[in-house]
Amino acid sequence: MSRQVHSIRINEDGPREGFQIESASIPTADKIELIDALTEAGLQEIQIASFVNPKKVPSMSDAEAVVAGVKMRPGVKYTALYMNPRGLERAIATGRLSIEGIGFSVCASEAFLARNENATPAMRKRRKREMIDIAGKFGVAPANSGNVSAAFGCNFQGDIGLDALMGVIESVHEFAAEYGCKIERIGLSDTMAWATPDKIRRSLDAIYNTYSGIEVSLHLHDTRGMAMANAFAGIDMGVREFDTSIGGLGGCPFAAHKGAAGNLCTEDFAFMCEEMGHQTGLDLDRLIEAARLAERIVGHPLPGKLKDGGSLSSLRKAIQAR
Amino acid sequence: MSRQVHSIRINEDGPREGFQIESASIPTADKIELIDALTEAGLQEIQIASFVNPKKVPSMSDAEAVVAGVKMRPGVKYTALYMNPRGLERAIATGRLSIEGIGFSVCASEAFLARNENATPAMRKRRKREMIDIAGKFGVAPANSGNVSAAFGCNFQGDIGLDALMGVIESVHEFAAEYGCKIERIGLSDTMAWATPDKIRRSLDAIYNTYSGIEVSLHLHDTRGMAMANAFAGIDMGVREFDTSIGGLGGCPFAAHKGAAGNLCTEDFAFMCEEMGHQTGLDLDRLIEAARLAERIVGHPLPGKLKDGGSLSSLRKAIQAR
Repeated sequence: MSRQVHSIRINEDGPREGFQIESASIPTADKIELIDALTEAGLQEIQIASFVNPKKVPSMSDAEAVVAGVKMRPGVKYTALYMNPRGLERAIATGRLSIEGIGFSVCASEAFLARNENATPAMRKRRKREMIDIAGKFGVAPANSGNVSAAFGCNFQGDIGLDALMGVIESVHEFAAEYGCKIERIGLSDTMAWATPDKIRRSLDAIYNTYSGIEVSLHLHDTRGMAMANAFAGIDMGVREFDTSIGGLGGCPFAAHKGAAGNLCTEDFAFMCEEMGHQTGLDLDRLIEAARLAERIVGHPLPGKLKDGGSLSSLRKAIQAR
Repeated sequence: MSRQVHSIRINEDGPREGFQIESASIPTADKIELIDALTEAGLQEIQIASFVNPKKVPSMSDAEAVVAGVKMRPGVKYTALYMNPRGLERAIATGRLSIEGIGFSVCASEAFLARNENATPAMRKRRKREMIDIAGKFGVAPANSGNVSAAFGCNFQGDIGLDALMGVIESVHEFAAEYGCKIERIGLSDTMAWATPDKIRRSLDAIYNTYSGIEVSLHLHDTRGMAMANAFAGIDMGVREFDTSIGGLGGCPFAAHKGAAGNLCTEDFAFMCEEMGHQTGLDLDRLIEAARLAERIVGHPLPGKLKDGGSLSSLRKAIQAR
């Protein structure tokens, strides 16, 4: 049985996805401290804020102040989430964020779209076009990438079968083609945690077989305890890029779960990668410290395990030093 | 990509492994209520007590009362843990437990053995012989099975490499051969959570290639967040039997972890199996109820996700009923 070693790219979503869901009002300085700690741990891409309606998501009303306060390391991408032209304009106006080309994102569930964004698929596409137009005025071209949210299922619509998923991915390609873009990379978001390793495997198999040379990234939630097994299945099938959250921060405020667990946990996932010989470029000890900081900031236990269980590298050192 | 469907056997360890580690003194009646709930959920094998020194493990001093109080369903195996002849005698004396043939268990780490059982490998083997002799007097023969604890690594000794593991498994076979037994089934216990899916895969590959027809069972801890991914790798390689704990109860009191997470979580694992089409024979809704009961009994949050996140079968029903 051969052991192939890969580089795995880990994009940190904790500051955005995590703080967005916390009910407590977290001081801006704490958010900045965590983001700086994540930079120190070696992360190359960190989503640090969400430019959404502050009336709907008050925890993100300090987005501009967070972006202004972060110690930015050259070469690291600091990104933000924006779901409409107004959010995009705010993000661009900071002058400090990596404004990537607007990707072609589609939601696999109409029911979730209605609930989460109060939109029909046609409305969402129209908004996306507006964003692409506005971005164009700022010199930002559309991207050769796409994303599918609720890719494996939806709490309000049910299972998204493989044929449905492939149909949605094809529609992403068609949407991109309207702008002369060719999808080179597609993200699959398991927004409401309907994926199992088996579904991940079959979906990736179909995607790689249908779209030669395409790269897939995964965004996984741990609401039903499957995130790490799904991530392993992803690595096994050739996925080299994952969104994660420090300490397992996160969840989805619109997904109707009281006890929604967070995203795939950054340090636990990095541990798995490194222990299996895959390179993440991350400093595991610093990640663990950042996870403990995140826990102190939110004021309640976070689901990540490694921050309590400890890494093996530290145990190996202690055993060798005896 | 073919989808093979299997029967997965889930052995519940929560009442023993879980309550053993809880510092609070849990009322005997609560333990019995949980065990009865686990029976109702369809489990076919439940480890319900540990006959250990009550001075060392006070939480298990009511083992006899627990065994006496459980509503036993015919056909279900109710087992107990015993690590020495005295414990075995106590278990047999209850007259209500499934006393299986004494298996040939070996610890892969001498350092852990010293710490956990205050024994050398030779001492442990001598104790095991005593137990086999005593069991023989009660008409209980040695079993055609073995177990390796600390199979993948040890917090006090470090990594257990594949060659070392295979050496230990060979010694289990030799030990059994002394009694004219042939090992048909071997359990691998990741006692201190050093396994990764990669190690699981390579170990199983080597074991199946070396010992034709052998069955392997896995006992996994989630201390570093790997339990579900390891379990998936196990299923994928052909493992059909797993030890789990309801709600993710458990941990190892001797493993020097303050924040030790528990065992592979019964209901989360059963969910993964069922969603992937493998049959467990378990009632997921009742398992979730039992997990919530376990949480109320121990008085603090347990790590299992499904009890908070909810199963997909219930969401599917709700969506269809609209």
